[in-house]
Amino acid sequence: MSEQGIRLTVAALTRRVEEIFRRAGLTDLQARSVAEVIVAGERDACKSHGIYRIEGCLQTIAAGKVDPRAEPLLADDGSAVIRVNAKGAFSPAAFALGAPVLAERAKQLGLAALAINSCTHFSALWPEIEVLTEAGISAMAMCPSYSTVAPAGGSEPLLGTNPFAFGWPRASGQPYVFDFATSVAARGEIELHRRAGKALPEGWAMDAAGQPTTDPERALEGAMLPFGGHKGSAISTMIELLAGVMIGDMTSRDALDYLGTTSILPHHGELIIAFCPERFAAGRSGNPLDRAEILFEAIAGQGARLPSQRRFAAREKSLAEGIHLSADEARMLERLEQG
Amino acid sequence: MSEQGIRLTVAALTRRVEEIFRRAGLTDLQARSVAEVIVAGERDACKSHGIYRIEGCLQTIAAGKVDPRAEPLLADDGSAVIRVNAKGAFSPAAFALGAPVLAERAKQLGLAALAINSCTHFSALWPEIEVLTEAGISAMAMCPSYSTVAPAGGSEPLLGTNPFAFGWPRASGQPYVFDFATSVAARGEIELHRRAGKALPEGWAMDAAGQPTTDPERALEGAMLPFGGHKGSAISTMIELLAGVMIGDMTSRDALDYLGTTSILPHHGELIIAFCPERFAAGRSGNPLDRAEILFEAIAGQGARLPSQRRFAAREKSLAEGIHLSADEARMLERLEQG
Repeated sequence: MSEQGIRLTVAALTRRVEEIFRRAGLTDLQARSVAEVIVAGERDACKSHGIYRIEGCLQTIAAGKVDPRAEPLLADDGSAVIRVNAKGAFSPAAFALGAPVLAERAKQLGLAALAINSCTHFSALWPEIEVLTEAGISAMAMCPSYSTVAPAGGSEPLLGTNPFAFGWPRASGQPYVFDFATSVAARGEIELHRRAGKALPEGWAMDAAGQPTTDPERALEGAMLPFGGHKGSAISTMIELLAGVMIGDMTSRDALDYLGTTSILPHHGELIIAFCPERFAAGRSGNPLDRAEILFEAIAGQGARLPSQRRFAAREKSLAEGIHLSADEARMLERLEQG
Repeated sequence: MSEQGIRLTVAALTRRVEEIFRRAGLTDLQARSVAEVIVAGERDACKSHGIYRIEGCLQTIAAGKVDPRAEPLLADDGSAVIRVNAKGAFSPAAFALGAPVLAERAKQLGLAALAINSCTHFSALWPEIEVLTEAGISAMAMCPSYSTVAPAGGSEPLLGTNPFAFGWPRASGQPYVFDFATSVAARGEIELHRRAGKALPEGWAMDAAGQPTTDPERALEGAMLPFGGHKGSAISTMIELLAGVMIGDMTSRDALDYLGTTSILPHHGELIIAFCPERFAAGRSGNPLDRAEILFEAIAGQGARLPSQRRFAAREKSLAEGIHLSADEARMLERLEQG
């Protein structure tokens, strides 16, 4: 292998990652769905959700905190709430089972929700959102994490980095989609500052005594801050309530108590809410997908970037030229394949 | 009348405000529901949504931009989406009609939405959220406004101040509820700085040339900024999509084009999403309302205030001692009564 690294098609990389997980004992559904999500991250140059994640997944299997043989179970009572009990599996397997039923129910009732329970969660939320926008559905997704963020006005870690994502389908095939942590920064960014010996920006974190800090070591011992002050803190609390308490699953504090560490992947649930734009707009004038384009043009037309554009550009490049792995990344993959 | 002002019970003030609107030509349903929402604001010491709002409502009637005789129409096809066409009425009348059906449908299906169309909107969203939490329902509410906020990375007003509210029922009767503008500040706060001749805090607004400004005059000619940078901007855009485009109603830009001014109340739609916690949690361990209390205690226990606590304290005082109006406010009320 050259020091320039290697190029692989999306399909080829997916096969290799899937095989690693199969050898680690995952069921076919788990291995395939986990590999697809990880390769989607790598394809879109979201390095923090790409093949770098494989080791974390394997460590969580080794720690016995995920069940590689679990078969998620779908429960559908015909209401607006679809449930998938992941039974300890990785979340992408549960989502793969529930997503088609969710999209169908949203088209039937206008609105539906998918509650995923008892899963191990490591992925970004946009891969799930994009499965739904692909089916013409608009969706919100949210989940707790583990307690690392202090509520606004407090100083003790309680909330998680609690991601929130939303998507809207577009005829172009590249949906309007955003996906962000409700903390000022992702925990991984603080870790990266620590490794690089760099100070944090102001306003990211406080130390164990509740004082503002720019020292990443002290920040990791203390608490991160929510984005947008009390407003972001409120949204993060809403996520604990809806995607933790309401669906009868762990809050970020429960997840931390269960695992006893933030060094393996969190175990909790997830909530996805799906909207059928055509059903909502029925009987009103104007096609909702066409009208949304006017809004997007007014945003992009003033030089404001739509979310995920950088990711879509990376995706186009990966699809055209293959996914590039550095020599180090290619060696990591080979090492994991030799398991 | 003494210069100390007057005290009125909630019921007495509601009757007086209702009568003002009846004399202004509103139907019984509109007069009652508008008065209840305005008095709720005054009762909770939310001065910007209290009796101060009466004149704005009357001006909007005089401008012919709201229909005082409109009878909102409920459409229910048995799906998860309940619709009320306000037919140009004030929004509280439409909500009053739709709320019981929404709560019932959420209990039946687990999840339901109320799409209100073609209303004039002036109220905070928490009065609506609290009607639902009172019925044991958790809810989100959102609506566009009119274009006064630039998307993150842009410089032209496009988004509205687009409020977002959420509530969760509590046995104490005081729900967990938040309600905030997705702009850094409400437009009224910039106006108050202008009147007081005070500079704005940094980061609230930009001038017409797209440069940051702390001058309230220039800010009003330019654009406000979303809260929380690109994250708040994304949430505000989501509100334009879901509560404007998706429900077949005006975006903030449409509303400004329709009215031609921000000096009368905006005309658009509203979206409320209702969740039944018992239905979502069914079959899982733990009662969701009890589990939520553990979260609230962990927030309050570290000295972080839950949202709306100041408002609830003002409410308790108003209910015990009556609502206090200053001499100026009492005179304003009398003037409006002589209309």
